[in-house]
Amino acid sequence: MIGNVMVGQSGGPTSVINSSLAGVFKTAKDRGANKVYGMLNGIKGLLDRQYIDMSDYIKSTLDIELLKRTPSSFLGSCRYKLPEIADNREVYEQIFAILEELEIDAFFYIGGNDSMDTIKKLSDFAILTSSPIKFMGVPKTIDNDLNLTDHTPGYGSAAKYIASSTKEIIRDGLVYDTPCVTIIEIMGRNAGWLTAASALAKGDDCEGVDLIYLPEIAFDVDKFMDKIRELLSKKRSVVVAVSEGIKVADGRYVFELADHIEFVDAFGHKQLQGAAKFLANKISATIGCKTRAIEFSTMQRCSGHLTSRTDITEAYQVGGAAVKAASEGETGMVIVLERISDDPYICITGCKDVHKIANIEKKVPLDWIINDGTYVSQDFINYATPLIQAELTPIMVNGLPKHIKLDR
Amino acid sequence: MIGNVMVGQSGGPTSVINSSLAGVFKTAKDRGANKVYGMLNGIKGLLDRQYIDMSDYIKSTLDIELLKRTPSSFLGSCRYKLPEIADNREVYEQIFAILEELEIDAFFYIGGNDSMDTIKKLSDFAILTSSPIKFMGVPKTIDNDLNLTDHTPGYGSAAKYIASSTKEIIRDGLVYDTPCVTIIEIMGRNAGWLTAASALAKGDDCEGVDLIYLPEIAFDVDKFMDKIRELLSKKRSVVVAVSEGIKVADGRYVFELADHIEFVDAFGHKQLQGAAKFLANKISATIGCKTRAIEFSTMQRCSGHLTSRTDITEAYQVGGAAVKAASEGETGMVIVLERISDDPYICITGCKDVHKIANIEKKVPLDWIINDGTYVSQDFINYATPLIQAELTPIMVNGLPKHIKLDR
Repeated sequence: MIGNVMVGQSGGPTSVINSSLAGVFKTAKDRGANKVYGMLNGIKGLLDRQYIDMSDYIKSTLDIELLKRTPSSFLGSCRYKLPEIADNREVYEQIFAILEELEIDAFFYIGGNDSMDTIKKLSDFAILTSSPIKFMGVPKTIDNDLNLTDHTPGYGSAAKYIASSTKEIIRDGLVYDTPCVTIIEIMGRNAGWLTAASALAKGDDCEGVDLIYLPEIAFDVDKFMDKIRELLSKKRSVVVAVSEGIKVADGRYVFELADHIEFVDAFGHKQLQGAAKFLANKISATIGCKTRAIEFSTMQRCSGHLTSRTDITEAYQVGGAAVKAASEGETGMVIVLERISDDPYICITGCKDVHKIANIEKKVPLDWIINDGTYVSQDFINYATPLIQAELTPIMVNGLPKHIKLDR
Repeated sequence: MIGNVMVGQSGGPTSVINSSLAGVFKTAKDRGANKVYGMLNGIKGLLDRQYIDMSDYIKSTLDIELLKRTPSSFLGSCRYKLPEIADNREVYEQIFAILEELEIDAFFYIGGNDSMDTIKKLSDFAILTSSPIKFMGVPKTIDNDLNLTDHTPGYGSAAKYIASSTKEIIRDGLVYDTPCVTIIEIMGRNAGWLTAASALAKGDDCEGVDLIYLPEIAFDVDKFMDKIRELLSKKRSVVVAVSEGIKVADGRYVFELADHIEFVDAFGHKQLQGAAKFLANKISATIGCKTRAIEFSTMQRCSGHLTSRTDITEAYQVGGAAVKAASEGETGMVIVLERISDDPYICITGCKDVHKIANIEKKVPLDWIINDGTYVSQDFINYATPLIQAELTPIMVNGLPKHIKLDR
């Protein structure tokens, strides 16, 4: 049994973050929750007493299916870091007063690293004040950079979008008989998991990308240019995947290198161009061939029209597992995914102390990055392939994916 | 009955250009063609005697299904304009010698405006030289800018990708409670059909984009900035769709305006940024709010994972209709689509003189552009909605869409 529940979403949205919300809602209701409240715009909204009764919006099993298939955060999001408890107890007292007033038994926060920091601090405060409210983290991030979990919900669908679109772009690049270099820029400031997923495009019907650059390894512009020249001497369409976060040895981002070439507007503001654009411009200027710079941009995190069924199912499962754990008395924990085997792929949920997860970034293991920092190993392929398997067909209405919308 | 056939693809690829190739191949075989040759990289490849026997690659009905679902041009493409006949008869004699040697009865070229120019010139030369070879154009272009056809195969799938992704981006933009302006840049240098498709995102589950700017109407930067300020006073997430080809009154492209703000690299090369990036930077610099510039880039023409079944079926039909017409003696013609009704949507194929189609650009009617050039009318919605209906599910293998590949 579980009492009233408060659930929120935080950080950057994903295609499957609402599947976790559906998992929390459904399991809480199944386990006897009277009220399931959803805070609007995360903890920041809760502080302003902005919340809804989820049952006013999710009224049927079809609504649950729509919620699972709706990308972005149904409840809205925030980027708000709670202060240290020692620095500002008032914020905590304010939050707990609201939770007590609503007779909340358990609090769930769906998010990444920063959101797990929120769970850590709230559960610490509960211990300090002997509050019986339970606080559980539900993992979510396309970046796949959470510690102690095999992977994070959201990653598989983003990886599937990246691999599919990369495959289609490689195919598109082959049509002309003139040389062309395509640079694809993929999200991930510090961890290369998403960019590595471009490797999944390779198969018996696709030659794959030629080079992959992750932020885990220092980027060398001269070596890169040499590689491009070498590839162009052998083939006419070269496709490269780079992380937005690649840095040169002195620590500057590649996209910052443009600073040194008067890349300012009339107001003296630095014009941010991406790493891909910078490299494509450099190739045009020095080698002179045609280039294309492509950014997957927001689409890689919100393309609900192409999700991994494995991912969306696991996102639902971690939401449900968090409610189950809380109803069994757990608090200050995060639900994680534990892989039993790659092939056949078997994965179960586990429960880990939030203190071991919050504020820690998990990067791609260095021994999975091969060919002098220009590709990823078979170990990565074995790891990532199961995560993009199968699809959850959108409910198409009038030619477009149908979403469920929070009208305020 | 039809004799040997030569088919080629030209211009920018689309998600469904191979469905037209499948239509030509299947109908030619059904009508008794002994050989169906595919020229590699269009007419340019044919001049170098680069062609294949299609039957060596398309061996089963499953291969035909895979071909229909494979984006980009299976046979490769070119951007090659034939000289005027009076200027250079030799090129024509060379082409006809190859066609005669292969005993070609009918020649099919799948492409846009420029490709129809090729058909026009080749059929003119056939008349001049009393050649019995028939030349037929099969329309293809995501730009939808061909004359005398209700729409072009390729447009519906691109429009569906644009509408779906725009809907997902709008949803993504709503999560934070801080103001943000998102500018989406969509293909179409001179015609706004693709950008207009962003209007299809609007529905009972999506508020739609706030402003749409097409290249048909001169763009006024100051008025645009006023509109953005006005919208930001009313709502926190503003989403705008702009064509890559929007121009200011003096004829300069918006993306060229950056010239005037020292937008050059160390080599003095002009750094091309897109219209969206320029406008987003301007909003950041003058209004100061968060902005996002998103380009659908190559994905809008190659995302075979999300196609319109209406579009892919019509692409197949125009290929077949071209073969049927040629086998009945037509030449110097282009297959067109003729709409019988919007709702229920009924559309048939027709046949038009290539001289009335080649080198003419069809733009969005000015009376379909409303709100002082910032939106499109219900007439456009009624026109475009049927074209994005229904899906053709990709054949998914190992988590990704399966393609058929031409190994050379």
